[in-house]
This record gives sequence, structure tokens and C-alpha cells, in this order.
Amino acid sequence: MSHPKWYLPEDRYFNPAPAQRQVAMRLYQAVANLPLISPHGHVDPRLLADENATFGTPTELFIIPDHYIFRMLYSQGIPLEALGVPRLDGGPVEQDHRKIWQIFADHFYLFRGTPTGAWLAHELGIVFGIEDKLTAETAQSVYDELEARLSQPEFRPRALFERFNLEVLCTTDAATDRLTHHQALRTSGWRGEVRPTFRPDAVVNLDAPHWRENIDLLSEVSGISVESYPRFIQALEQRRAFFKAMGAKATDHAAVTPYTAELSVAEADIIFQRALGERATDEDARRFTAHMLMEMARMSVEDGLVMQLHPGSVRDHNEDVYRRHGKDMGGDIPQATEFTHNLRPLLNKYGTDPRLQLIVFMLDESTQARELAPLAGHYPAMRLGPPWWFHDSINGMRRFFDRAIETAGLYNTVGFNDDTRAFASIPARHDLWRRVAVDWIAGQVVQGIVDEGDAHDMAYDMAYGLTKRAYRLDTA
Amino acid sequence: MSHPKWYLPEDRYFNPAPAQRQVAMRLYQAVANLPLISPHGHVDPRLLADENATFGTPTELFIIPDHYIFRMLYSQGIPLEALGVPRLDGGPVEQDHRKIWQIFADHFYLFRGTPTGAWLAHELGIVFGIEDKLTAETAQSVYDELEARLSQPEFRPRALFERFNLEVLCTTDAATDRLTHHQALRTSGWRGEVRPTFRPDAVVNLDAPHWRENIDLLSEVSGISVESYPRFIQALEQRRAFFKAMGAKATDHAAVTPYTAELSVAEADIIFQRALGERATDEDARRFTAHMLMEMARMSVEDGLVMQLHPGSVRDHNEDVYRRHGKDMGGDIPQATEFTHNLRPLLNKYGTDPRLQLIVFMLDESTQARELAPLAGHYPAMRLGPPWWFHDSINGMRRFFDRAIETAGLYNTVGFNDDTRAFASIPARHDLWRRVAVDWIAGQVVQGIVDEGDAHDMAYDMAYGLTKRAYRLDTA
Amino acid sequence: MSHPKWYLPEDRYFNPAPAQRQVAMRLYQAVANLPLISPHGHVDPRLLADENATFGTPTELFIIPDHYIFRMLYSQGIPLEALGVPRLDGGPVEQDHRKIWQIFADHFYLFRGTPTGAWLAHELGIVFGIEDKLTAETAQSVYDELEARLSQPEFRPRALFERFNLEVLCTTDAATDRLTHHQALRTSGWRGEVRPTFRPDAVVNLDAPHWRENIDLLSEVSGISVESYPRFIQALEQRRAFFKAMGAKATDHAAVTPYTAELSVAEADIIFQRALGERATDEDARRFTAHMLMEMARMSVEDGLVMQLHPGSVRDHNEDVYRRHGKDMGGDIPQATEFTHNLRPLLNKYGTDPRLQLIVFMLDESTQARELAPLAGHYPAMRLGPPWWFHDSINGMRRFFDRAIETAGLYNTVGFNDDTRAFASIPARHDLWRRVAVDWIAGQVVQGIVDEGDAHDMAYDMAYGLTKRAYRLDTA
Repeated sequence: MSHPKWYLPEDRYFNPAPAQRQVAMRLYQAVANLPLISPHGHVDPRLLADENATFGTPTELFIIPDHYIFRMLYSQGIPLEALGVPRLDGGPVEQDHRKIWQIFADHFYLFRGTPTGAWLAHELGIVFGIEDKLTAETAQSVYDELEARLSQPEFRPRALFERFNLEVLCTTDAATDRLTHHQALRTSGWRGEVRPTFRPDAVVNLDAPHWRENIDLLSEVSGISVESYPRFIQALEQRRAFFKAMGAKATDHAAVTPYTAELSVAEADIIFQRALGERATDEDARRFTAHMLMEMARMSVEDGLVMQLHPGSVRDHNEDVYRRHGKDMGGDIPQATEFTHNLRPLLNKYGTDPRLQLIVFMLDESTQARELAPLAGHYPAMRLGPPWWFHDSINGMRRFFDRAIETAGLYNTVGFNDDTRAFASIPARHDLWRRVAVDWIAGQVVQGIVDEGDAHDMAYDMAYGLTKRAYRLDTA
Repeated sequence: MSHPKWYLPEDRYFNPAPAQRQVAMRLYQAVANLPLISPHGHVDPRLLADENATFGTPTELFIIPDHYIFRMLYSQGIPLEALGVPRLDGGPVEQDHRKIWQIFADHFYLFRGTPTGAWLAHELGIVFGIEDKLTAETAQSVYDELEARLSQPEFRPRALFERFNLEVLCTTDAATDRLTHHQALRTSGWRGEVRPTFRPDAVVNLDAPHWRENIDLLSEVSGISVESYPRFIQALEQRRAFFKAMGAKATDHAAVTPYTAELSVAEADIIFQRALGERATDEDARRFTAHMLMEMARMSVEDGLVMQLHPGSVRDHNEDVYRRHGKDMGGDIPQATEFTHNLRPLLNKYGTDPRLQLIVFMLDESTQARELAPLAGHYPAMRLGPPWWFHDSINGMRRFFDRAIETAGLYNTVGFNDDTRAFASIPARHDLWRRVAVDWIAGQVVQGIVDEGDAHDMAYDMAYGLTKRAYRLDTA
Repeated sequence: MSHPKWYLPEDRYFNPAPAQRQVAMRLYQAVANLPLISPHGHVDPRLLADENATFGTPTELFIIPDHYIFRMLYSQGIPLEALGVPRLDGGPVEQDHRKIWQIFADHFYLFRGTPTGAWLAHELGIVFGIEDKLTAETAQSVYDELEARLSQPEFRPRALFERFNLEVLCTTDAATDRLTHHQALRTSGWRGEVRPTFRPDAVVNLDAPHWRENIDLLSEVSGISVESYPRFIQALEQRRAFFKAMGAKATDHAAVTPYTAELSVAEADIIFQRALGERATDEDARRFTAHMLMEMARMSVEDGLVMQLHPGSVRDHNEDVYRRHGKDMGGDIPQATEFTHNLRPLLNKYGTDPRLQLIVFMLDESTQARELAPLAGHYPAMRLGPPWWFHDSINGMRRFFDRAIETAGLYNTVGFNDDTRAFASIPARHDLWRRVAVDWIAGQVVQGIVDEGDAHDMAYDMAYGLTKRAYRLDTA
């Protein structure tokens, strides 16, 4: 019996007009094989620190840890337990990985027209070389084939890292992380470049879960007893220095809003003491985060770490899922975001300092043309991150190019981030970006906006150059 | 003398690139003649209850009752009185229907590039078989032809219902409606499927015009004396049961915002008593509506009626028009809408219950990618309604497909609603949706996103299957 | 050595599908040479009042006065001083215009894909007939050529005005301006039509810089001692009458928000007296501006001047740049704007009066389909201005056409404004609009939405007719 095959035409994601498609293909051929730079993501460094690490079963690789996948199945009424997603209380969840895989295959049609569907086609069809499209009928034979591949040494994480032509991969690490996997990587002799990223949200946002324990941990790892705001700052500076010594090029900051405002040291300490005493209010947390974003910019000016800010996500919207399964379970929902007024204090204080590189991401596309592009098109320190999360998609990228670049200019953007915890999806995500980017540039050529010489430079920059420079990976 | 003809090319609304157009045409041919499901609209059931009902003059059919038409003429300075729109005070309005028709024809150019223009071309050119395009010159001869058609039995409402291949038509009916026309329909022996929809805004929103009288009416029709909040709930449950017995599959709810929040029974009763005493405040109305949306979800969980919510319209913005002509006069204007926080209480309480089907519509497109698609792509109970009202247009549909489906997934949407009170426009609206939908799918095919096998399934679902399942029309 | 040339294909900005491109070209040929109407802009009337005025050096023409150019260079770390932008304190800035030009050329790649890049290609390649594209290598030879051109009489402002086929050019002038250049123009015998526009922001917005001095100036130029609110109104009416006598067709109003609300004369006077005493609060300023917008509409009803409103810009976001260089330095950033509620008082009072023509601009595109198109598609007095400022671009125009016209209708829009202070860019901007407009119309034709007969009418109206009628330039 013959099954449908993966649909991965050579010229996928290109405009159907032949004139544009031809230019896009020429540009694509020039950038398709450039090394991948992954300056922002959530891959577990343990996968690469241990040369013998494996991905486990197909279900462990593709379904259980990936909220892009299971949120869609969940949205159609499939309980997370039936997909093997662990419960915080250790309660029973499905253990039969073939059964979970079958559910996934039965519902694979749900991913039609989604970026997840496009990534999966690339991963299964190209990275793992599976010919048959995933359907209810092919589920078990595809599982067999994947299992066989995953047992081979050339499908271990380090081997894929090399096959993917990853020039550098940055992870995301808590400020209190001792970076033991990164330590192990540096002493392992393996030549893969893996760098940590400093993410202090859990100690900087007073309303972060377990904040008080995180502060104790910060005292412990920094060796600085964090009993006051000045000591807190000192400990953060110590951690940044440690991360930098371990190869970090950047920091990363989440906040519900990008509100920034400076407090006096005295005010900051009063709030900090209230937080230590577990008496901080919501308004305290809001003002303290606003202040700490200023402080983080100040430290970036001093130590040269690139500052990334991605506001606008309401975390754990579905409280039941959060209680049962914890965070990052597909239930984070964006909200409207205001940048013009919120970033004004930070940009006025540090936005013209050549030592600062501030990369801003968004989940509210209405701000692209209205606020972010005008800001990035003015302040020397500010750059626009690529479409994030829900917008890391064919249309999300096109909307970003259409709305942001005319005003911000291409050179105030920073190329692509895959932002993924799904290691095997990295080449799929970068390839999709490169295809959509060259198609957009080709559109500019055939519409008489940029000539093909410029187009080639733009394609190189969007695929590689902008990212390398934006994250200061071109400097020691 | 020869006149310009209606411009209705076979491949209208398809992308101009031939590769995409060919796929679109293949998909269109497969779905063009599927039956029409109209699960949400405002057709007067009297038109179908009475087998001898007619549409009146061309002006009565096309202009006087249709705010899509007369708002555009009004926006260019033509008084509603000159278009025959009745005044509440019974004051004089134009009675010469040929004269009104001539004004319409003289200004028909105003509809260039609008959905109304596209619908009218289909209605006049195809439904009524008029060859000449409407212009100042053809106005009277077109009127003559229309008059002739309208006098024929095959242009009566029931005949058109059958010609349109309407599988089911749902009307919208006040909670206090006795559904006499629906009763008549059910006993008439005619096989057309016409169902009521339960719309309780006029009794649920304390600030609805004539709320106090509506409550008296509710007491009367339900036989339950609505003198307290518990009695109010009881009466609503009684009405829902009656509607369900009369064939209703769904309820429908408007609100200025989608704010939801639960009150205790005691709090709800205090507010309700204030409202009965005509002392309710704006804040009372706001909180009570928020609470009643929760209650409506609770009842839907219990009785299985699909819940539709369409917030965001500021009604009767033009107070002078409202005073002179009443509501639905083309002066309702959308406002920015927030869903992430507003729907959180409802979704946390009922959003994972498989018995609830909540269909959310919007007039604020900035929420599509930012809030609605992530919510629908997570909560099992939530689905996205098609582009509503001003967005029920070629570009409105395309924006919806581009912004919502990558994140929500196609299978968290519900196909098309025509939402019209203009019965003769129903096939035009469905045909436009089907064309734009297949063109969008064809775009996915020629861009290598979905294969043509999937594309055929998607086309069927967008044209028919999604709607049938979403409104539970596939169950008894 | 051969250099790259300007890339200005004949069919630029047209869709790549040949079917659409052919229709677009036919439409373009019909409108490309229509006269230009520039009803809203910031050209200095002195340039045209003095028949011997010249543009100075290439750097003075293209860089120093143009914030579109220098903001982009500044965003990449080039100080405004290095670009010769004057400091308020008279401190040193670069004086070597060839050196500034070289910096501009070295960074010309920053304008890839921006409207500024497209305008510059047109200006240099077509208006000034320079063949070589601007690069680091060609910088000085291009400068030589430009210098030579600028020294010729046919490149003086009046000569270009005639070559550009400008039918009318409107400037923007403070309410306190004595219009001496306009006086000179009227008596010069030159046949070019140049009209002033009444812009009272500096006296109407209590928080405008130097408001108190501006009021004194208003007293002086009007001959009315502005010591009370009634006198203030009288002085404004006097100025409007003067502007009208000097040929003005319109007024122009900026505000942070489009909030409108009427005060009693007594309330207005209390606030006005506080402002005279320099004790006005932010809330006073907000309410007074809201009231004055109502008053301006009232005066427009009476004197027939078209009222333009463009809200939503947060001025001088970068305080350091403002302190050093003043206003209009590329640091104005849009914010989210609300129209539905804010304009309601004004539209309810004056929006149906045929004597009022209110043209509304926006910097918040999310309002186009949600608020502005529904409002303009209903209120007889309201029209939508073309995409403004950051949105005066290929994509900005396309978004506007896609989002606004289906609901507002084309005939509730007003064609194009160049809104520029860069005189030499006027034909580039109008040509870009005309190309994008005809391409949009051609898209409607090949998609079967409008026939080619209608398309020709629409092209004429978008290129010329709508503007002429909207600004009442077709009346004496």
C-alpha cells in the first residue's frame, strides 16, 4: 500500500509569481547553507554536555516536552495526561509512547497551515529522512523508523549539532544557575560553541514564584549575602561577570509590560526589604521590575552584555493546567503592550549610549509599525528582535517585514532567533526564516524597490550577518 | 444603446498568479455547490413562515432595510429620509420607491471595492439575472426587471430558500420571543429547516433600552414572576428549554466588552433588585453582564446550546440618527477590545468542559493574532467565529486567515456565518467566503505549505464541515 | 570604472503577476502626468516667494533639514552634529558639506527598502538626472553633479514647481504668522498657486512650548488684546478670516489624542485665565484642547475651511536631542489612539453638517479598520486622510487601502498629501502614491472586484479628483 509523502517542494514558502520565485531561489541558494547562529533559545545544555546523551523515544523527542504540539491537541479536547505530560503531583499519565504517538498522528491534520506543521514536515522528512507523511495509518511505521534513527550515533545531539552546521548556540539560564553543563562543555574538548545567557527574572521580578527561595539561592551561588538592595545589585553584577566569563554574550528579560522607571536606592531598598519580608505589594513588584530593567541596562552599558527584552505574555492563563502541570504548558496568552511611554525612561537614560545594545521582542503586532519601528529607527541602542513565539511563522515574519522595516530599516533588526527548546527543530526554523526572508527580498527586487546587488547583501545579512553583529559574536 | 454589464468573472477573488488561480479553481469546483449552512443571521422568520410572503419592491428589498447600503449613501450626505428609512416619529420620508432607487443607482459608484458592491453584483447579476450593471442610466430599466422578477412565484422567499440550497437557516430571536413564526414553520409542512437562536441581551444587559418592560415580558412569556435574581435565572432556563425544544442550537450574546466575572447569588440579587427599582448604576450593569456571561456559559454546559459572543460594538454612536430612526441604522462603531483578561474567569471555569462550545467573534482585528488565536489554540471549549460585520469582506477574511489560523489552527475556527438580514444576499456572501477560502488554501498549496490532498479536506471543511460540527448540526 | 546605476524600472511598485502588472501600467499611463495637488505640507514659502531663492548645497538640500534622513543615520550611532544639524546653543557642528555627504553615501544602504530610499532614487535619478547610484565610491562625483545642477536656473524652486506640474501647493503656517511670504507671492506676478494653511496648535494647546509668548504675538498680529477666552476666540476668528483672504482652504490641528469635549464659556475662561497666569494643569490643557477642537469645527462650519486633524504623535521623545537640537528631529514616536469615543462629541455636534469637511489622519493603523473606516463610512462630514508620516510608504499605503476602503468606501478618502518639507521630493512621493494606487486598483480588476471602466475612474480620483474636491479646490 502506498502512503502520502511529505510535501516539501524545493521552492516552498515563495510567492507563486514566477518572476519573484526565480529571484527568491537565486537568493536562497546563496544563503541556504550558511552556518546557523542560534543566539537565543531554550535547549537544555545537558544534551550537549554529555557526549552520550540521546533524545529518548520519538514521543519524548517530539511531543511530551513541546508545548507547541500538545497545546494544539489539548485545544481539541485531548487531556495532557493522555499525551504523557507529567503531573506535578506525580499522578498517572499515559506511559505508552506508541499510544501517544498514535493520538498525535490521528490528529496531525490539526497542524495544517501552522508553523508547527511546517517544522514537523522538515524534521521528519529531512532531518530524520522519513518519506511517509504522518497519518493514522503510518503512525506506527513512522515510529519504527524514528526509533531506529534515534538509536544511531549520528542522531545524538552533538552529531546533529555538527550536521546542522550550528556555529553557535546560546541557552537561557537562571541568574542562580551554576552553569555546570556549560562548565562541562568547555572542558570536554568538543568544539561546538555553546554559550549561556543570563536570565534574572526569577530574582528580579518580586512576584516570580518562589522569589524568596531564589534570593537565598542567589546568596549561595554568588557568595554575597543578599540582605539589602545594594547587596542584591552586587550579587547580580557578580553573576553577570561569571556568566560573561563562561561565554555569555547576552541577558534576557521577561516582563508583563515593558514599563521602565528609576527608583532611588533608598526607595528600591524599602521595596526590597518588604519583599524579603514577604510583604511586597503588586505595585511594589511593578515598580521594582521597572527599576531593575533600568539597572540591567546600566549594567549592560558597563559590561557589554547585549540586553534582550520580551514583554507582553500573561503567563499560566489556564490555572488548572498550571496547578496540575506547571509552567510552559501552552497556556501563556499575550496581551496588548505599550512601548512608547514605557520604554521612554530607559531610552532617555541609556538609549543613545553606544555601549548598549537593546533588543526588543513583541507579541503585540499592532506596536510594530506604530511604536517599535519608530523607536528602533531613532534610538542608536535599540534593535528589533524577530517575530517571537506565536509570530515565528510564515505570516508572522511577513507581517514583521511589511510593517517594521520601512520605518526601522533592515539594519535596526537582528536577523533570526529560533527561541526553541526543541533541538531537532532548529534547522527547520532557520530554513523557514531564510526562505521567507529571501522571498520578501525577492518581492522588493521584482517590484523595483531594491536592485539584485543590494538584495544579495540583504539576504546574507538577514540569514547570518545581522545576528552575528547584533549579539556581538563578531567580537572576542 | 448598450450598457455596461455586471462584472462577475468565473475566477473572481482569486490571486492573479496563474498557478494559484488554477488550484483555487479546482478547489472551488469541489465546494461551490455544497449546501449552505447559515447558523447565525437576522432574517425575519415571517418571510418563510408565510408561504405567500414576498419581498415587496426592489427598494424595499435592497435599500430601506439594509444599513450596509444606506449608511454609505448617508456618509455622502444623503439624508435617510430621502432613502425612505422610516422615522420613529412617523414623520415624512420619501415614498417614491423609483426615486429612491434612482438615488441609489446614481451613487452606486460609492460601493466600488466594498463587500456590499460585490454582494449586489452577485444578487442582481446572478440571483435576479439582470445583465445590465446598475448605473444612473439603467436605474429604471433595472427596476422594471427586478419588479417583474419579484412578482414571480420563483422569487418568493421559500422558493429562493430552496434555490439557494439552504440546508439550515438560523434566525436570531429575543429571549422573550414566543417564536410564533417558528411555530408556524414547524407545522406548515414545508421542509425548509429554520431554527431560532436564543438572544437574551435585552433582559441580561441592565442598560438595554426598555429593560424593565422586557423583564415584565419575560415574566409573562415564561410564566415565572421575575421578581428576584433566582427567578430571573429560572425564567431564562425556561426560555432556553423552550428555544431548544423549538430547534435552537445556539445562543447569541452581545456586550460592549467581553468582561466576565462571577458574582455571588446575593450580590447578583442586590444588583438585580436595584435594576428592578430602576436604580442600577453603570457599574452595576457592567458587573451584571459580566456575571450573566458566566451564567450563560454554565447553562450552555448544562443544556448543550452553543454559546456565541460578539463584543466590541459601540451602538448608536450617532445620537441624532438613533433618536430619529432607532437602532441598526449604520451608526454602530467598533472599539478596541480586550479578551485575554476579560475572558479569563469564564475560560478558567468552563473553558475545558467538553460540553461547552464557545464561539467568539471580534471587531478588533488587532486581537486576532495577539489574543484570540492563542486562546482558541489552547482552551478546548473556545472557537473563533468568522470575520464579523465590517470584516465580512474579501480583505477581512484574508486578514483573518493570515493572522488567526497559524496559531489557532483551522480546526479551532467555525467556517462561515452570513449574519445577514438581507435574505437575497445569502448566496452571494457564502460564495464570496468560499472563493476567498479556497484561494487562501490554494496559496498554501502553491507555497508548499499544504499538499493538495489536505487542501481538498480543508476546502470542504471551510465551506461546510466546520460550521456543521461547530453548531452541533450534525447531532440530533 | 563603472558604477551601479539607480534602479528605477518602469513598472516599479507593481505586483509581480503579469496580469495585474499590465492593468496597472495601463492605469498608470492615464494618470502619471496629471497635475500634482499638494494640499498639505511643510515647504517653506520663502523658497517660492523669492524668485532667486536656491536650495544651497546638496547637503543643505538633502540632509541637514530632513529628519527622515538623519534619524536613520542617527539610529546607527552617527551624531546629529556630524551631519551638520544645528545646535540650539550654537555649539559646533560639522561644516564640511562634502564630508557630511560622504557619511550619508557610506550609509546609504540603511535606506534599502524604506520609502526614503525610494524617494531619493527618484529625486537623484530622475529629478536631478544623476545616473550613478549613491555609494561610498560615487559620493563625491554625485556631489559634483548635484552642485552643477543646483547652480542652474532650471533647478531653482520656482522652475522645479513648474517642471513638477504642481497645480497648487499648500504650506502650513502658525496662526500668528503674518504670511509675508504669501503676500509677496501674491503680488509677484508669478502664476504658481501657493496657499497658506491655518495651524493654531501653538496658541490652542496650552502646553505648547512658549504658549504665553504666542498669545502675546496673537494679540499683536490680530490687533485684539487676548486677555480672556472670548477675546481669544475672537482673535482666532480674525486670523482665520485673514488666512482665508490670503487663499487658505484648510486648517490643520495636531493633538496627542483626538479627545473632543465641549466646555461652557465660563469653564473655558477659567482655564484660559489659569493658563495666562501660567498655572494651568495638564488636565486643563487636555480639556482645553478637547474643547478647542470643537470650537475649530464650529468655525469651519461657519467659514468653510476644511479641518484637518492628525493626532497620536508623542513629540520629542528623546529629550536630549530635543534640548540640543529642538523639535522635528526624528524623535517623535506614535502612541495608540482612540477615535470612537474621543471624536463622538465633535461628530455628534457637527458631523452631519454639510458645511463641515473633517479630514482625519492617523499613526495607529489598528484604528483603520476598527474605528476610522466605520466612522468615515457613516458621518457625512468625515473623510480619511492618506497614510501619514511613517505610513507614507508602499506598504503603509497598501495596508490603508486593504483595511480602510472596503468599509469607508473610496469616496470617503481624500487622495494623497505629501506632507513634506523636502520640496524636491514632491514628485517622487506623488509618483509613488500613484503607482501603489493604480496597482491596488489593478488588483481589484484582475480579482474580478471592479471592472476596468470603474478602475479608470478610480485611478483618476485617487491621483487627482478626490484631493481636489476634498480640499474644496474646485470652488472659488
